Amino acid sequence: MKKMIYLDNAATTRTAPEVVEAMLPYFTEYYGNASSIYEFGAKSKEAIQGARETIADALGAKDNEIYFTAGGSEADNWAIKATAECYRDKGNHIITSKIEHHAVLHTCEYLEKNGFEVTYLDVDEHGVVKLDQLKAAIRPTTILITIMFANNEIGTIEPIAEIGKIAKEKGILFHTDAVQAFGQLPIDVDEMNIDMLSASGHKLNGPKGIGFLYIRKGVKIRSFIHGGAQERKRRAGTENVTGIVGLGKAVELAVSTMEERTKRERELRDYLMTRVLKEVPFSRINGPRDNRQGQPPSQQCQFLLPVY
Amino acid sequence: MKKMIYLDNAATTRTAPEVVEAMLPYFTEYYGNASSIYEFGAKSKEAIQGARETIADALGAKDNEIYFTAGGSEADNWAIKATAECYRDKGNHIITSKIEHHAVLHTCEYLEKNGFEVTYLDVDEHGVVKLDQLKAAIRPTTILITIMFANNEIGTIEPIAEIGKIAKEKGILFHTDAVQAFGQLPIDVDEMNIDMLSASGHKLNGPKGIGFLYIRKGVKIRSFIHGGAQERKRRAGTENVTGIVGLGKAVELAVSTMEERTKRERELRDYLMTRVLKEVPFSRINGPRDNRQGQPPSQQCQFLLPVY
Repeated sequence: MKKMIYLDNAATTRTAPEVVEAMLPYFTEYYGNASSIYEFGAKSKEAIQGARETIADALGAKDNEIYFTAGGSEADNWAIKATAECYRDKGNHIITSKIEHHAVLHTCEYLEKNGFEVTYLDVDEHGVVKLDQLKAAIRPTTILITIMFANNEIGTIEPIAEIGKIAKEKGILFHTDAVQAFGQLPIDVDEMNIDMLSASGHKLNGPKGIGFLYIRKGVKIRSFIHGGAQERKRRAGTENVTGIVGLGKAVELAVSTMEERTKRERELRDYLMTRVLKEVPFSRINGPRDNRQGQPPSQQCQFLLPVY
Repeated sequence: MKKMIYLDNAATTRTAPEVVEAMLPYFTEYYGNASSIYEFGAKSKEAIQGARETIADALGAKDNEIYFTAGGSEADNWAIKATAECYRDKGNHIITSKIEHHAVLHTCEYLEKNGFEVTYLDVDEHGVVKLDQLKAAIRPTTILITIMFANNEIGTIEPIAEIGKIAKEKGILFHTDAVQAFGQLPIDVDEMNIDMLSASGHKLNGPKGIGFLYIRKGVKIRSFIHGGAQERKRRAGTENVTGIVGLGKAVELAVSTMEERTKRERELRDYLMTRVLKEVPFSRINGPRDNRQGQPPSQQCQFLLPVY
């Protein structure tokens, strides 16, 4: 019998059966529009609120600071484009790194064509952003620092708390693409001075097509998708109730199992890395050996291993 | 026993059990990333392609003219904002109507704050856009006409083919928000000279959180969500495989049952309208009596009727 070992969990994960089970009633039983005013729609609204609170708790945030999106890319686009527009009076300079996800890099390139200036920070041999270079890059016109929490290809965890401290001292907004970190690493938006944070459901055994943007209260940011009054008038579109419920359940599972699960995953990762390094000629690790994200050995293993 | 009769199908619909069934395997069994290069991810890619072809066929379009989005609001925002930006060299004038969905109206208002001029056409007593006013509103700087296919509140069907003809004669792009019409009314993008068309899954017994934008080949339009190379580099973000599969199944069901289903729905609608008009004092119809969308009597019935 052929057995598949799936090693690409940094690309996407299996939706957990518990997540699917939590979603199912909202497809065919409680399918009301969460923005309607009658009792039937209120069932959907309550379910959304429950997920919002679960996510807020996981970040040390308030529930009204969580805005559901279609995923991490939308959240990144929203955070960066809307900040650029809303803070243009203050300046036109953005700082990011050379190893961000394309959702950040291509958004920054788009802004460069529209009058913004972007500094792309270098990283060291382990993929870590250079803090001295970050400090030196700050200008009076810098309105945003956007640095990912954990890298999607080599797994490096960036010094988010240090970056947040620098941003706060300089009065600059700090956004982090935490798509690869949320649910895997402990995150506290207050302790880390994070003003905006993007995350995605399908990276933590939730469904595809759902994510969120955390926006700290007080940050001025326009809508990215204009229209209806959903998400406190900041993100239009009929709420994806099943997706939100699934994301909430996935976050609940990820948070409650984080310590034990990531310990096990680190062990599996280290086991694979050690054996590959020892037994596969000329193999080497791309990225850091230790300061890397705790999921199974995925980031540098973009292949499937058939076991007979 | 209390039985609920749900009359708000213009707000959202129940996801059909067949749709849920079609989606289920893609949550836990074929959960690969559709953009990955190995066989497992190809399962997801094939499923997406199948849905894309079903939708294209339903519109008389080509499969590579269908771009999946998170829903109708994103599709409307994308069509209007990106056209505005990409055709700004040609002009800064947009024509729409006063009774569009907020996803169109608020997007137009946003553009007005950014240097664009928008004409909001009047409608007659039945909610129909005045074609003479449309012709008179066209300027050398008009780059886009965006008029909804069927209205979400009073059900009026707009004269889309006539508007398309006028737009084509004048060389102006024509976008239609068909969220309330797609799956309910026959649509042919070539015959109707439609250049862009927005639709949403949850209005036709598909899941929430998925929709699409049809973009005619040759229309220049930038990405709305920048990032990965998904959707032929035009819409970034890991593909919502389950949502797309569900939408495809919903469209397949809607198209195959359209004639019979909408006949039955028109009968139910007319029955309710006739009895309400006769038996409820001072009641009157909001919108046209006949030229209205074929779904159950929903648009003007924003209430639930408990039957004991």
